[in-house]
Amino acid sequence: MGLLKDISSPADVKALPAEQLDDLSQEIRDFLVDSVSRTGGHLGPNLGVVELTVAMHRVFDSPRDTMVFDTGHQSYVHKLLTGRHDFSKLKKQGGLSGYPSRAESEHDVVENSHASTSLSWAEGIAKARRLSGESDRHTVAVIGDGALTGGMAWEALNNIAVDKDLPLVIVVNDNERSYAPTIGGLADHLAAMRATRTYERMLDWGKSTLHRTPVVGNAMYETLHGVKKGVKDILAPQGMFEDLGLKYLGPVDGHDIEALEAALRRARDFGGPVIVHVLTQKGRGYEPAASDIADQWHGIGKFNPETGLPFEVSGRIWTDEFNDEMVRLGAERDDIVAITAAMLIPVGLDGFAKAYPDRVFDVGIAEQHAVTMASGLAYGGMHPVVAVYATFLNRAFDQLLMDCALHRQGVTFVLDRAGVTGSDGPSHNGMWDMTICSIVPGLHLAAPRDGEQVKQQLREAVDVDDAPTVIRFPKGDVAAPLEAVRRQGSVDVLREGDGDPEVLVIGVGAMCPTSLAVAEKLEAQGHSVTVIDPRWVLPVSDDVLTLARGAAHVVVVEDNLVSGGVGASVTAALRADGQQQPVHCFGIPKEFLDHASRGQVLDQIGLTPDTVASTLIDRLRPHA
Amino acid sequence: MGLLKDISSPADVKALPAEQLDDLSQEIRDFLVDSVSRTGGHLGPNLGVVELTVAMHRVFDSPRDTMVFDTGHQSYVHKLLTGRHDFSKLKKQGGLSGYPSRAESEHDVVENSHASTSLSWAEGIAKARRLSGESDRHTVAVIGDGALTGGMAWEALNNIAVDKDLPLVIVVNDNERSYAPTIGGLADHLAAMRATRTYERMLDWGKSTLHRTPVVGNAMYETLHGVKKGVKDILAPQGMFEDLGLKYLGPVDGHDIEALEAALRRARDFGGPVIVHVLTQKGRGYEPAASDIADQWHGIGKFNPETGLPFEVSGRIWTDEFNDEMVRLGAERDDIVAITAAMLIPVGLDGFAKAYPDRVFDVGIAEQHAVTMASGLAYGGMHPVVAVYATFLNRAFDQLLMDCALHRQGVTFVLDRAGVTGSDGPSHNGMWDMTICSIVPGLHLAAPRDGEQVKQQLREAVDVDDAPTVIRFPKGDVAAPLEAVRRQGSVDVLREGDGDPEVLVIGVGAMCPTSLAVAEKLEAQGHSVTVIDPRWVLPVSDDVLTLARGAAHVVVVEDNLVSGGVGASVTAALRADGQQQPVHCFGIPKEFLDHASRGQVLDQIGLTPDTVASTLIDRLRPHA
Repeated sequence: MGLLKDISSPADVKALPAEQLDDLSQEIRDFLVDSVSRTGGHLGPNLGVVELTVAMHRVFDSPRDTMVFDTGHQSYVHKLLTGRHDFSKLKKQGGLSGYPSRAESEHDVVENSHASTSLSWAEGIAKARRLSGESDRHTVAVIGDGALTGGMAWEALNNIAVDKDLPLVIVVNDNERSYAPTIGGLADHLAAMRATRTYERMLDWGKSTLHRTPVVGNAMYETLHGVKKGVKDILAPQGMFEDLGLKYLGPVDGHDIEALEAALRRARDFGGPVIVHVLTQKGRGYEPAASDIADQWHGIGKFNPETGLPFEVSGRIWTDEFNDEMVRLGAERDDIVAITAAMLIPVGLDGFAKAYPDRVFDVGIAEQHAVTMASGLAYGGMHPVVAVYATFLNRAFDQLLMDCALHRQGVTFVLDRAGVTGSDGPSHNGMWDMTICSIVPGLHLAAPRDGEQVKQQLREAVDVDDAPTVIRFPKGDVAAPLEAVRRQGSVDVLREGDGDPEVLVIGVGAMCPTSLAVAEKLEAQGHSVTVIDPRWVLPVSDDVLTLARGAAHVVVVEDNLVSGGVGASVTAALRADGQQQPVHCFGIPKEFLDHASRGQVLDQIGLTPDTVASTLIDRLRPHA
Repeated sequence: MGLLKDISSPADVKALPAEQLDDLSQEIRDFLVDSVSRTGGHLGPNLGVVELTVAMHRVFDSPRDTMVFDTGHQSYVHKLLTGRHDFSKLKKQGGLSGYPSRAESEHDVVENSHASTSLSWAEGIAKARRLSGESDRHTVAVIGDGALTGGMAWEALNNIAVDKDLPLVIVVNDNERSYAPTIGGLADHLAAMRATRTYERMLDWGKSTLHRTPVVGNAMYETLHGVKKGVKDILAPQGMFEDLGLKYLGPVDGHDIEALEAALRRARDFGGPVIVHVLTQKGRGYEPAASDIADQWHGIGKFNPETGLPFEVSGRIWTDEFNDEMVRLGAERDDIVAITAAMLIPVGLDGFAKAYPDRVFDVGIAEQHAVTMASGLAYGGMHPVVAVYATFLNRAFDQLLMDCALHRQGVTFVLDRAGVTGSDGPSHNGMWDMTICSIVPGLHLAAPRDGEQVKQQLREAVDVDDAPTVIRFPKGDVAAPLEAVRRQGSVDVLREGDGDPEVLVIGVGAMCPTSLAVAEKLEAQGHSVTVIDPRWVLPVSDDVLTLARGAAHVVVVEDNLVSGGVGASVTAALRADGQQQPVHCFGIPKEFLDHASRGQVLDQIGLTPDTVASTLIDRLRPHA
């Protein structure tokens, strides 16, 4: 009791006697369960790496040595050991980030929460150290078995393998699952490597047995080595990493600090790239997180597999609307298939998966492959629905453009967590998707304003068979149903101004309620305001142009970058149509947004009814 | 003699007696050498796959079976065997595409020239066939050892490996090099697999030797199997693919049609995914292409390693300016390092590589890794210069945004082949880069107008150590030097109008000469025109805003998508500055451009002095 409070730097961790380390680990675990289960955050992944992180800080010397955490949501223990003990505002405005943060600590390097990048970062850092004559500064990357399914990690391994004197330690944190059980040949390979710890004994047996047999000169000696490797391959096929040319150590029990320290020390002192294969248990020490999250088919509603915490959902979320409609569509059309990149439950494909297990594909953390495989499925006559978080579509921009759009394949993309997500920090905000989609020839993009529109627009999307279609909606509780006054062509008119409206407000998806609130404030100032929801926002429809013709001002409100967003497309379309009225675009500025709640971020960037309305009232004043 | 002319479909290939196939192959080779060495095109890769393609069309039944070529520049033989014999206008307007083309033939599927996509396409197609109850329609993908270094290919393999009954044949076309010798652990592994064909004999010896030794019950029998695999791993370590769970056949002599047919037939009939490892010789049958291209350090100036053809360059190209300046910078600053993705010579890093071999990294076809590794190098104190074709930056957009820009790493990107490249078709045009760069916070982008500016701007770029910088220039002969009248801040004024100009023309990089020509035509109509080269076009500088203040019209001419390009950024910046004059943007429309010469494409899309000027004269008429 009371060890953790005296840990303010890695030096304190190093100074602890070995026999106190298990106590320290228990304190850390207790702290995390208590603290994170109250604040929210990624509990499971951090409970799995307690001993590993302790061992790392005893063997390596941060910040002189560099620690890179892949998908840094498992850096909480690292934060504690580097003196950050106030978790009370974790992921909240002014509190600790849920990821490593250079602003917080000199011990943090990579802030990114997009997976599979750590090996590339680490190779670059290790090469820079060597070029600077500082090869004694070690670099260690921690990557999960899930993140290893991403292509970037393979690109890095392929390069690291041939740089034989690069001092780089790669810790493979193997807990058999990322968000869901890890998928693919690599996972099977790792499982085989986990399967037995007895192969060394078996090997000894084989060696002694053969030593008792007649030796046929040198050739038999060679054969013996063949046996050695062969038996290894049967029982624990390290082959893949070794064939690539990488030194492999393990498997190591990830909850045995002494064993971890020994392995890490050997790896550190090897002088070249080494993989240390560590077996950990996600959620260790917290029963719900450790056991239930694996049950992805039935566990939903109990624990969030992304965090290991109970779902905090109050009511129905946007994802649920998609989830349910996919089940219905699956029953109606057997050509509809679904693809997820290691996020089956978070993106709402679990209903479809349960109903049509043969028609859902979880490809691992592999968005590029997901998009191109979808193009292949479409070529073969299916209609694939690729469901990803909006921010992760950036990973597959080239494939969306060159495989899907260039080949005019009918693939539907469903982007969840679009717009400001807030608490997960800058790399989780879905603020780039409409801009990159706006430059893809032939692509159609819809932004539903409520649950009914999610369903309608999804149905309209899967009817398009010669171009990519995109549906994007935000995180969290689905918006209250918002009835249209009337539909004009493809556009829903949400509120009519008097006659030719002076101001036409175009609300994009979840920004429709904000747009209506803005309209009220403008009308209180004597403006006539019409509000429309174009539903399909890209490309800009003729119906929008028609409705804009009578407007002296056009306003676009969107939760996407204002640069190159819907506002920019509307402006360009109006000008091409010969319309010259001012267009006022409100959206997210071109900057990385610090973590805070969604509401706080929207407030900061002025994407609220008050700020939008008062800006507009200012600008419209001469015309009032 | 005369076999090829009677081949109008795969059925004709199948009907040929086996003893005529070598003659057919020789005819194809003669045809390609004769035809392609006159028209230009990818000769070497196609000479390497003559027998392979013949064998494929005898074993598989296209188009009922589907053939996917990775980086389709090796599909010329396939074109010949599917009835396309007129190569006289290869890659020219109205002639055959240099890649597969659905418009040309029902035998073509994937048009994309971006590497490493074929396995994802093929998995999708094979899965669609199975879902449609057509598992007897086979899918075969041909992927080079170079393309296997791309992460997408690994993502696909990881997924294919666990789909044990997916009828999918993966031909690994192993010629030990993509454009340059293939890099990495995988290449070493393939080399080991190539190295010996005698392991089967060795295996037989081992088996019989052990059979003569005392057998220790069942355990020894198991050990024997261990030996079998062990010896295999020593001599021909198939381990990597097998460990992943993939059936492996090979290596097969890629110029022995009988052996190829036998292997492909076995693979086709296996009923699950199979890798067929085929050894080919790039450029086979054409001495210069087969031998000299490997010599990447000294062969430059003789043969283009990308095509296997002599360089057609008349004079100095843009790339040369970068190449030379990098050598000078390397001498001045030892923190400058360079990264290429399997394109050392084409992107002009061979000079730097020769002078500073320890400071250049060829990562394989792995743009994602290149960008993130660069971020790591920058964190470690280096200043990396990542040189890629503009179109390939799309592959690493997420890494540019999240690894480089979010972490404010000083990395310089040099985008060659920016703008319209023409003859390589839609996927080679560098028309997206300025749009995606324009939404990256903190990023600075320069577009040099001539060789002197390439050098100046590269120097300015490598001085920025807290943000990504980008230099982009086109393909081909460098523009003639273009002197500025004066420099105002960071902006070069190329031509002064009288007093406050009525029209300010902003020329972007290579579009500066076009902009000057437009100005002359406008001035002939009585307009006063100032032409500027902002040099650093993103973000829009205050100097540009200052110069625009007196202009009644602003014109932007760029060889990038007009959507979200420099024109869009200029418009937004002017509006934010309170300037309301019309902005006329000229650039590339949002569509995929068919192959033709650069000049023809520019003409088609109206990016010529005549068209721009006449459009403007029309629009300015009321003000004239």
